[in-house]
Amino acid sequence: MTLLDTVTEQSGAAAYVGYGSSLDPDMRYLTRFSCTDPVVYLKKTGEQGRIVVSQMEYGRAVQESAFLPVTRSEAGLLEILKEEPDRWKATATMISRLAGGDLLVSPTFPAGLYAPLSSLCTVVIDDQTVERMRAVKSEEEIACIRTVQLATEASMKTARKLIHRAKVKKGALQRDGEPLTAEWVKQAIHTTLLEHGCTGAETIVSCGPDSAMPHHTGAGPLLEGEPIVIDIFPKSETTGYYADMTRTYVKGEADPAIGEMYAAVRDAKAAALKEIRAGAGGAAVHQVAVDLFAERGYPTGATGFTHNLGHGVGLAVHELPTLGPSGGPLGAGEVVTVEPGLYFPGIGGVRLEDLCVVRSDGAENLTHCKEEMIL
Amino acid sequence: MTLLDTVTEQSGAAAYVGYGSSLDPDMRYLTRFSCTDPVVYLKKTGEQGRIVVSQMEYGRAVQESAFLPVTRSEAGLLEILKEEPDRWKATATMISRLAGGDLLVSPTFPAGLYAPLSSLCTVVIDDQTVERMRAVKSEEEIACIRTVQLATEASMKTARKLIHRAKVKKGALQRDGEPLTAEWVKQAIHTTLLEHGCTGAETIVSCGPDSAMPHHTGAGPLLEGEPIVIDIFPKSETTGYYADMTRTYVKGEADPAIGEMYAAVRDAKAAALKEIRAGAGGAAVHQVAVDLFAERGYPTGATGFTHNLGHGVGLAVHELPTLGPSGGPLGAGEVVTVEPGLYFPGIGGVRLEDLCVVRSDGAENLTHCKEEMIL
Repeated sequence: MTLLDTVTEQSGAAAYVGYGSSLDPDMRYLTRFSCTDPVVYLKKTGEQGRIVVSQMEYGRAVQESAFLPVTRSEAGLLEILKEEPDRWKATATMISRLAGGDLLVSPTFPAGLYAPLSSLCTVVIDDQTVERMRAVKSEEEIACIRTVQLATEASMKTARKLIHRAKVKKGALQRDGEPLTAEWVKQAIHTTLLEHGCTGAETIVSCGPDSAMPHHTGAGPLLEGEPIVIDIFPKSETTGYYADMTRTYVKGEADPAIGEMYAAVRDAKAAALKEIRAGAGGAAVHQVAVDLFAERGYPTGATGFTHNLGHGVGLAVHELPTLGPSGGPLGAGEVVTVEPGLYFPGIGGVRLEDLCVVRSDGAENLTHCKEEMIL
Repeated sequence: MTLLDTVTEQSGAAAYVGYGSSLDPDMRYLTRFSCTDPVVYLKKTGEQGRIVVSQMEYGRAVQESAFLPVTRSEAGLLEILKEEPDRWKATATMISRLAGGDLLVSPTFPAGLYAPLSSLCTVVIDDQTVERMRAVKSEEEIACIRTVQLATEASMKTARKLIHRAKVKKGALQRDGEPLTAEWVKQAIHTTLLEHGCTGAETIVSCGPDSAMPHHTGAGPLLEGEPIVIDIFPKSETTGYYADMTRTYVKGEADPAIGEMYAAVRDAKAAALKEIRAGAGGAAVHQVAVDLFAERGYPTGATGFTHNLGHGVGLAVHELPTLGPSGGPLGAGEVVTVEPGLYFPGIGGVRLEDLCVVRSDGAENLTHCKEEMIL
């Protein structure tokens, strides 16, 4: 019995059902099948999971997925569509027949299926069971993440080198006589990632005022003496796993205010990493950073430390567990970021982020990239 | 009044509400905000849309989104969470208070919000209104797609060159003394896409028996005399729009069976393209290909022509309209693929795919890549 079986049984349902493409990390985790179009996943307690795919995906699903697939027509969809032309309602009928009883679904299950299914049986909405299963990684999954982390570090090295070797002209970084822009650095990062079989998206290379907005992806020329926040969180094209890392650099001399922020962020990261082990509270680890920042005179809230200390990383770049006020106890095998940051409009931002595995006796840091502010 | 307003009003709802990240093309279309974490979109009829974002995204949302954003705490979520700690239920309460009446949602709206909202008000599930809005592109959107199509063609050129220049040894393609693999060609395609600001994923370079499975992404050495199906559908990193194109090549001499399939597919594409104009039926255009294949002795079904003739392309790579048995009349400004294909296990597959804009007087083909089988 898996955790999913246990929870399904406890909910009184006969089966767990999921619907989505492999962009949905729950679906990718459950099906081990990579697909751009949605499939149905159905698991009766104690039985193997099944996926229902289109005729077109069948051959590939036989080869790739963890389970024996069935086609939609084998599952009766074409017959049902003759009497119920609405695809959502027809799919709901097909699911209900396959399950033969009440259902457990995730909160992200589409309302278009939930509503018609609710008139056919009891549909219980689950609370993060699959997400909690995903949070705890096997050593095989950790190996996948480690590989992506290596790609991430290689691409950070590419970015670092570009900034390190840049010349400065009128306060702006230059390379081969051209302004070195955020776009240029991102391009170089993405090319390195690609060489390692990974894809980067929404990569952050933000400088100056932009760096004060944690999720600003950055644009335009990079400037001397201003923090350059580089946050890279690529996905492996083969396994679907992510890694996540941030470094902040300054080209030339940094304002003392930035230097002090950098030291506080670095120390907060080190202090929080020391507290991480199986059983430690996600809220308590977050609080370590909050307290250290408070000691140095930095607020936590709308400015200063504006976000959670960290999050799980796996088939999604943001997943359980939470290192933040709402975080519960950490479990062995969880993979989390530790990413304290300080942000002040008008001054800029500094963030440093490592990725580590929660072990029974501490954090195993997967990050080996040096911390250095001045390039 | 937009179409969304009209449909909302007709449904008896006070507001349309959406929930998701910008990976959800409806959300990206409605909010014009690129975000990896889910936001709430709410539009009361006749009013401007609003998005509810986290504190952390607020600054960026002010700069980037089409509307004035509100933070979750401004929208009352933090207050509600004090009494209702379940985040889904608390978010439902927040939405219900913001809307002040009944709601219209999409079929993909999460059940985790739909269920608690249904106990607070009437929630009507919409049928593809936003998808139908997305289907018809403005000239500005078409310009975005055109740009991605140029990137797609540049990357096809890269692939073509690799195959064209490959040497053949013992039936396998070689480059610099190494086997030229599907992985190698995909890597080269992705690098070219990146140079054009686009990202490729699930790109297909499939050869031999793999090519008989339309969605097999392909792996391993490319072979002489076997069809090599290359299907590229990248996304612009800046605009979020997709393009889509397929070419099939053979290195060396092709089996006459493959040559005949190629000619039939090419002729089916040309015949279907001629039928495309505003008002033409998606089913009728699909039938043109079915009929042409039948004339040449090729079946439509489990083998032969196994999929729809085409689909819309925009902020999703598969969207409305449908060129297939269920397709309704095409509208001016829709952007569709025309991609007949023939697949026979043991023989292989051939697919050719162009991208075109539906105009009142015909199809404006956005594809300028030559058709040539033998390289």
